[in-house]
Amino acid sequence: MKIAIAQINPVIGDFEYNLNRIKYYAGKAVSSSCDLVVFSELVVSGYPPRDLLENKDFIEKNLASLSMLINEIKGIGVICGFVDKNPDDEGKPLYNSAVLFENGKILQKVNKRLLPAYDVFDESRYFEAGTECKAYTYKGENIGITICEDAWNDEDILRKKIYHMDPVDLLARDGASVIINISASPFHIGKKEFRWNMFSSIARKYKAAFIFANQVGGNDSILFDGTSSAFDRHGKIRALARDFEEDIIFYDNEEISGRLFEENTHHVSGSDSESVLKALIMGTRDYVTKCGFSKVVLGLSGGIDSALTAFIAARALGPENVLTVFMPSAYTSKENYEDTKKLAENIGTRFELISIDSIFKEFVRLIAPSFKESEPGITEQNLQARIRGTILMALSNREGRILLSTGNKSELAVGYCTLYGDMNGGLAVISDIPKTFVYELAHFINLEKEIIPASIIDKAPSAELKPDQTDQDDLPPYDILDSILKGYIEDLKGADELVSGGFDPEIVEDVISRVDRNEYKRHQAAPGLKVTTKAFGYGRRYPLAQRYNNRIIKKDS
Amino acid sequence: MKIAIAQINPVIGDFEYNLNRIKYYAGKAVSSSCDLVVFSELVVSGYPPRDLLENKDFIEKNLASLSMLINEIKGIGVICGFVDKNPDDEGKPLYNSAVLFENGKILQKVNKRLLPAYDVFDESRYFEAGTECKAYTYKGENIGITICEDAWNDEDILRKKIYHMDPVDLLARDGASVIINISASPFHIGKKEFRWNMFSSIARKYKAAFIFANQVGGNDSILFDGTSSAFDRHGKIRALARDFEEDIIFYDNEEISGRLFEENTHHVSGSDSESVLKALIMGTRDYVTKCGFSKVVLGLSGGIDSALTAFIAARALGPENVLTVFMPSAYTSKENYEDTKKLAENIGTRFELISIDSIFKEFVRLIAPSFKESEPGITEQNLQARIRGTILMALSNREGRILLSTGNKSELAVGYCTLYGDMNGGLAVISDIPKTFVYELAHFINLEKEIIPASIIDKAPSAELKPDQTDQDDLPPYDILDSILKGYIEDLKGADELVSGGFDPEIVEDVISRVDRNEYKRHQAAPGLKVTTKAFGYGRRYPLAQRYNNRIIKKDS
Repeated sequence: MKIAIAQINPVIGDFEYNLNRIKYYAGKAVSSSCDLVVFSELVVSGYPPRDLLENKDFIEKNLASLSMLINEIKGIGVICGFVDKNPDDEGKPLYNSAVLFENGKILQKVNKRLLPAYDVFDESRYFEAGTECKAYTYKGENIGITICEDAWNDEDILRKKIYHMDPVDLLARDGASVIINISASPFHIGKKEFRWNMFSSIARKYKAAFIFANQVGGNDSILFDGTSSAFDRHGKIRALARDFEEDIIFYDNEEISGRLFEENTHHVSGSDSESVLKALIMGTRDYVTKCGFSKVVLGLSGGIDSALTAFIAARALGPENVLTVFMPSAYTSKENYEDTKKLAENIGTRFELISIDSIFKEFVRLIAPSFKESEPGITEQNLQARIRGTILMALSNREGRILLSTGNKSELAVGYCTLYGDMNGGLAVISDIPKTFVYELAHFINLEKEIIPASIIDKAPSAELKPDQTDQDDLPPYDILDSILKGYIEDLKGADELVSGGFDPEIVEDVISRVDRNEYKRHQAAPGLKVTTKAFGYGRRYPLAQRYNNRIIKKDS
Repeated sequence: MKIAIAQINPVIGDFEYNLNRIKYYAGKAVSSSCDLVVFSELVVSGYPPRDLLENKDFIEKNLASLSMLINEIKGIGVICGFVDKNPDDEGKPLYNSAVLFENGKILQKVNKRLLPAYDVFDESRYFEAGTECKAYTYKGENIGITICEDAWNDEDILRKKIYHMDPVDLLARDGASVIINISASPFHIGKKEFRWNMFSSIARKYKAAFIFANQVGGNDSILFDGTSSAFDRHGKIRALARDFEEDIIFYDNEEISGRLFEENTHHVSGSDSESVLKALIMGTRDYVTKCGFSKVVLGLSGGIDSALTAFIAARALGPENVLTVFMPSAYTSKENYEDTKKLAENIGTRFELISIDSIFKEFVRLIAPSFKESEPGITEQNLQARIRGTILMALSNREGRILLSTGNKSELAVGYCTLYGDMNGGLAVISDIPKTFVYELAHFINLEKEIIPASIIDKAPSAELKPDQTDQDDLPPYDILDSILKGYIEDLKGADELVSGGFDPEIVEDVISRVDRNEYKRHQAAPGLKVTTKAFGYGRRYPLAQRYNNRIIKKDS
């Protein structure tokens, strides 16, 4: 059996667009004489549709689109994901479903059994869990259809089974020799390798081929990397689709070596830097264009964060669509003008200079009477950031450009950023990139030639909101800060655990307390592009008004 | 059996504080010779703790606190909610649990069976569902313990059973003669009456007393109204706690009339206006104080929204803690100064005037070169709002005041508001109040004497961002707008359904399209106080980059 795996980039709710992509790739599979073409999870509507699922009309349009596919695609078996209605009186109203159809007839329908409800996933909010796990014999092959999470409960691989059923195991027991997994499995660093190991191990364990058809593209914060793949019954990878692009690959169950294999092993990123950069470029492009925009604006400070963001924007949308603005104040060092100008030349973006000094003076003059009692400080620093944010939003309004914010994850974590100031933006491009990784990406970009000026990479990071300020006056060294942040945010380690891990108790306490008390800023942050196991935003949900004190437990002496 | 129902206002994560409240009320129950005292759901940690539940130390501190309660409260049975660990290898790691203990001994432990995962609820994100429904005989009475949602799946009352089990029914079959329901059941308009009907009907149906112990207080957006109550086996209400305040009430199963009944029927709000006003005052107070603040600042425009917000703030925190700021521009009508000054006098808040004209001119002068090609418009309107927002944040920073934003639900729905401008704030006090209801609340406040000046209520609403602007130049009349918004947002009606309901198709299309395309603004909005069945924020989760077109389906002619 020759199987095509089509990884497309659907637009949520654009049924017509998605239908056309599906038909286009189904056509390719037909012309390659495939028996079966497999599309990703909820491909008809795009994943995740979130509360659009509560709209009856949305569900009906999705069902009507599926009907069109069933009637229009001929000469090949098709497996694809859609939203089905639960016909029972009892239970949640919808199913996350997959269908196998051929020449106008539905052969099998399957409901997703394992519904993820952690991190960015909310599937139990909408869907009733499926219960049936039956293989289906199609063209002599016993096919077992699973939907994403359905394959993620293997007791040999996962430390803890959070579900009480293993659909893959049940399908294998029912005789499945080809396990199909249609997915919308998001990217994070290391995820691709984890999937490969897991799918390979499942294939070996059950002596069944394993077909992984993943969504590709960015939908708000969530980035889907594609890397769809086929594993033979010995667990060997036999076809592999590109990462971060639409693609189609072919796998023949009976012909598992030779040209077919070589032609269908496409290039995927070799390093974390390469894949993260591709992820951010794709995520920026998809967010801007799926929102109906084509142009962006961002501020350049002369620092590395805005330089990286500008590079990503220029790659994502074309430099002609990126306006970069330099907004110096009295505290801005002279070299930053030269550095930003050179950067803009290197990446090819339009460059403007707007000084904020006169406005800043006017604000201080006006607000001073209210400030009799205390000395200038944070207030004036935030003022400068807010003036810049206001100027950028004026440019955004006037020219129909989405403003990109340029803050990194380390800053956002400890609140070293100004709400309604440098946090302004429709998309926070690098808000899930720790500062130390910002440097790695900059070096990666400069591997062949200097695109980001070396002086930008080499200078000490500074907010430049008061004289001679550097980040290191206010924060621990970034390598230490980032390690503590990873422990606390991604690995959910408590203060005691971090201190046992060798970090200084005072620094740990300071960092954790900053993270906790700046939750209110992140609550109002722009969506960011998720590339780690735990990003701020939708997948990390903390109360704001709370007094939990996750501090070091003082041992009695 | 004499039962005390204690409704307390826990602070999320402040175990020591919550413990002390519990012990204080347990003491009251002991001195009133009660056999049993009942506290609310997750009372030990406060509800909802959200992702704090992923922190191991948080769970341990909650268990340690429960142990202290079990060891320290003597001479009475206690039922209270806490987070338990799931000891099994399989399934989610936690339970949402209740315990019945007495004199240092646990008599029964119960795990919540029905885990809500809709609107603001995310319980299946954290908890494994309980399966057991057994009554427990305590002092000769068969007690059936349920936790909030456990009592919300009665097939006679709810249109659709979304769960496959009815714990109340199973407990009644197991002989329960007293159904205890510990809850963290949020307020919305009409919810109290719905609960009363449902609990009364359950009591009658199973001929069992029904005890409802609810949390009270505001936790971020979610407001808990209390109104704990006891129903006898005939469904008659026999004890009722106050709304929006801590309270304790007593109910004796054997003595169901006379003085005990009268003394334990406390006052609750008689009208929607009364309860919503109490809800907003409590929510504002709790948000500000639980965040560790005592003072607030807000802008007064001369309009009714900011007037209502200022009144609520003064009631919540004391007028001495509220700074009100009037920030006129060239487009501000003269009468607004008099109106706002009078309002501030009436409610007793400090009042400042800061004109934004000189800053506005400076911004326009500076940014003009970038604006060669087009005429002034929305950009300049937004600029004014952002200058005001920046001034207010400067005051907030400088004086340690939380900024309250003053936008109503109708504005926020259609995006008639400026991101990083008038949307600035730590809390959006009236963001779930439609404009038409803002007027009702103002009239309710003025019932006995004029607090909000009549001229503020009577003037035509205006953003005052360009000459002679009124809201009605840009928006449909508010009564029509609010009806369409309720249909679309709260009742999830599609365009066709709204048009069949009698609304003008063009207006429906315009309103729906505005709601959809302004999702990005609301994504970055301050948390608001939820008083309707569907508020913007945590309980309404829409993708930003999507192209679903919920428009009127054009019928073929």
